[in-house]
Amino acid sequence: MAHLLSTHSTFTLTKTSKSNFKYQNCFSAVTFQNPKTSHLTLKSQFRSYQNKPFTALATSTIGQDITSKAHENSNDQFLSPKNKKVMVIGGDGYCGWATALHLSKKGYEVAVVDSLVRRLFDHQLGLESLTPIVSIQNRIKRWKQLTGKTISLYVGDICDFEFLAESFKSFEPDAVVHFGEQRSAPYSMIDRSRAVFTQQNNVIGTLNVLFAIKEFREECHLVKLGTMGEYGTPNIDIEEGYITITHNGRTDTLPYPKQAGSFYHLSKVHDSHNIAFTCRAWGLRATDLNQGVVYGLRTDETEMHEELCNRFDYDGVFGTALNRFCVQAAVGHPLTVYGKGGQTRGYLDIRDTVQCVELAIANPANPGEFRVFNQFTEQFSVNDLAKLVTKAGEKLGLEVTAVSVPNPRVEAEEHYYNAKHTKLIELGLIPHLLSDSLLDSVLNFAIKYKDRVDTAQIMPNVLWKKIGVKPKTVSV
Amino acid sequence: MAHLLSTHSTFTLTKTSKSNFKYQNCFSAVTFQNPKTSHLTLKSQFRSYQNKPFTALATSTIGQDITSKAHENSNDQFLSPKNKKVMVIGGDGYCGWATALHLSKKGYEVAVVDSLVRRLFDHQLGLESLTPIVSIQNRIKRWKQLTGKTISLYVGDICDFEFLAESFKSFEPDAVVHFGEQRSAPYSMIDRSRAVFTQQNNVIGTLNVLFAIKEFREECHLVKLGTMGEYGTPNIDIEEGYITITHNGRTDTLPYPKQAGSFYHLSKVHDSHNIAFTCRAWGLRATDLNQGVVYGLRTDETEMHEELCNRFDYDGVFGTALNRFCVQAAVGHPLTVYGKGGQTRGYLDIRDTVQCVELAIANPANPGEFRVFNQFTEQFSVNDLAKLVTKAGEKLGLEVTAVSVPNPRVEAEEHYYNAKHTKLIELGLIPHLLSDSLLDSVLNFAIKYKDRVDTAQIMPNVLWKKIGVKPKTVSV
Repeated sequence: MAHLLSTHSTFTLTKTSKSNFKYQNCFSAVTFQNPKTSHLTLKSQFRSYQNKPFTALATSTIGQDITSKAHENSNDQFLSPKNKKVMVIGGDGYCGWATALHLSKKGYEVAVVDSLVRRLFDHQLGLESLTPIVSIQNRIKRWKQLTGKTISLYVGDICDFEFLAESFKSFEPDAVVHFGEQRSAPYSMIDRSRAVFTQQNNVIGTLNVLFAIKEFREECHLVKLGTMGEYGTPNIDIEEGYITITHNGRTDTLPYPKQAGSFYHLSKVHDSHNIAFTCRAWGLRATDLNQGVVYGLRTDETEMHEELCNRFDYDGVFGTALNRFCVQAAVGHPLTVYGKGGQTRGYLDIRDTVQCVELAIANPANPGEFRVFNQFTEQFSVNDLAKLVTKAGEKLGLEVTAVSVPNPRVEAEEHYYNAKHTKLIELGLIPHLLSDSLLDSVLNFAIKYKDRVDTAQIMPNVLWKKIGVKPKTVSV
Repeated sequence: MAHLLSTHSTFTLTKTSKSNFKYQNCFSAVTFQNPKTSHLTLKSQFRSYQNKPFTALATSTIGQDITSKAHENSNDQFLSPKNKKVMVIGGDGYCGWATALHLSKKGYEVAVVDSLVRRLFDHQLGLESLTPIVSIQNRIKRWKQLTGKTISLYVGDICDFEFLAESFKSFEPDAVVHFGEQRSAPYSMIDRSRAVFTQQNNVIGTLNVLFAIKEFREECHLVKLGTMGEYGTPNIDIEEGYITITHNGRTDTLPYPKQAGSFYHLSKVHDSHNIAFTCRAWGLRATDLNQGVVYGLRTDETEMHEELCNRFDYDGVFGTALNRFCVQAAVGHPLTVYGKGGQTRGYLDIRDTVQCVELAIANPANPGEFRVFNQFTEQFSVNDLAKLVTKAGEKLGLEVTAVSVPNPRVEAEEHYYNAKHTKLIELGLIPHLLSDSLLDSVLNFAIKYKDRVDTAQIMPNVLWKKIGVKPKTVSV
């Protein structure tokens, strides 16, 4: 017979465990001790995602992490992916496709919602992914054939509310992962019409998602992709979404001030403000993932078949810094460092992107909560990246040089940068760190496909100060 | 012969004078003393608005405010309204019309740019201004007939860039005052399509204005109407646009955090971020006037003729609190206090709106500067206003009662509120304070037109939590 040790009306784990997230919905926890064995039993009652109560039991000796055990035992009931339908908006894009496959693999029921306009941008600008990619229809067919898992496909524009509403009513998502935005800063700085498109598309699309959740799936958790670029480069530490300010003798915790550096980054700032309001006013639940610069190509799922291969952008418009550097190293093009190269940002491996999104879904925000995670694993300056790629390239016998090109952007080239990123680690993120082996891997891809490289696309051709009002098609 | 007393490469007045604003553009000031008379002469060289240097001279005895004299002497050359063409976007609206007339009266060359959609809103929602208003065409004709002054009229939508570009090229403004936005919080909370309209119209319209300035009139000063509602109700003092934060041992001055309370207020937050970026990236010059709640009807110009009369909104969608209370008092309707009535905001007389805009235009921001002024004169809670209207009404023999109605909004009903508003005072604003006489004046208008009051329009019928996705025409 166990003795009752303690009763808690609510139960919150301390930070000693990485697994405290389930206990957000724990409304009763009772600890028993078996006097013979001294084993502890934690009996916890939870409200599940659908608000149904259930009980989890865990037994442990004193000193063991009983709560983690309870967490493991409750996993099936509380967090079973079988019960979770996830809509991935923008699921045909770079991060979206990797995420859709990862969630499907993990047992979530996945629907991809995408207008496929990202593929149109490539046509219009004369760009192409380094890696050959197949149509979304064939990607999904191949996935089904390999795994037996179905990914639903809704092709349409979320700015068209009629389409979005029908998608919601048809799929009934428990979580929405929203990648469905124009996501390139240079694209947004090409000309007036693309600046306007970026803000209109991103802001109105997200407004529509918020209205769809409110109207059709009020319990649905919105996982929204923001960007670390929302913060700019302030001269103080960057916190995760909020900062506690003491001013003239009073204190409040307020949204972290935003200083975005392009019309694209600004569109994400606007989204964040809009989403925060709907959490406050309507009680929606949302997680804003302020993501750093993503690099890499492979995830466990995309490497299962060449038809599942992800896109890989290296051009001046859609290419991220590290991807571009690897391609440049592979083809013997000097690494193009913008300006002084002291620009420091957060970076992460695409395998961590999918892990972070999974963690956010598995640990939903509470109703009314607008939660912000800084989603990156390491900070580097552009010069740091150039050095790392140079070093890795040398190991592969490549002669790598770096050259400073005039900075097309308006940004500080030497600045303080220290951004917090502990919340996802606390939820269990195990980062893939940027290392020589990773670089080798990315570099090897670049080498494999180097015949596909169009070197004319590498140089920056969108200048922040030169944006004009006349439509411009950037095709070099 | 005067002795050279001092030479300054730049010259900044202290705050002892209200007139320091001209000296922002002073690049050389030399003080001479006449040994016989002991009189001082200040010889200042300025850059004028068009960046042409000129010299101002002022003579004074020691101890006199020589700099004010210099300011007065330089007035004609530096700030002559004759040289200033001001485009008033939204010049047919409540604040816009009063401002257009005021600037025209002061000698500025004024163009009204307006799509007149505000009049369409009234038709669609079945609302009407308490005061009869004539068409913009007849308003302008009457003004010409009374004063001999021409106001140009451009009827069109600034979201249509072709129209805006032609207006800019035709009028060539030196300053743009931008009131041209959907400006009602309840309107933005009626239904999804009006929420989307509000953000799209306001954000894209403002983006177009920024692009028009960059492309066609880079030196043009943008005076943009923001709102105090961008700040929300933080538990610390509200500063004017920026706040200096010390955090983990480092200090930076950052944009003040924003917590807007409706899709309308959010649209202004988005504008502020977009404008700040263009000042930083393109070197535009802008002043964001974070205006409080405006009350009152009369300005010196609108009262010149009944055809110049301004609109006066008292309904639940467009009516501001004090205007609505005065109408309610006049018709014997209880004053409708939302919730507990502790909601505190900044207020100002419409005569101060036009004064503030004039001051902002006369003292333009520097190239690259994004300047924020909090534009209000006094703080009141809703309960304060109800008491003041009750007291004023009693003096006119009205029996005034107040009633609490369920708050249609989501907002704190008891909170700390202390917002700074010194920058416009420093530029010379002399506030009209809310007093019994003012209330009498507004109340007398309400009484004069009380037969036109539609009491069905007074009650709030837009509920923040009830906004839905189906188009709703709020016609009670």
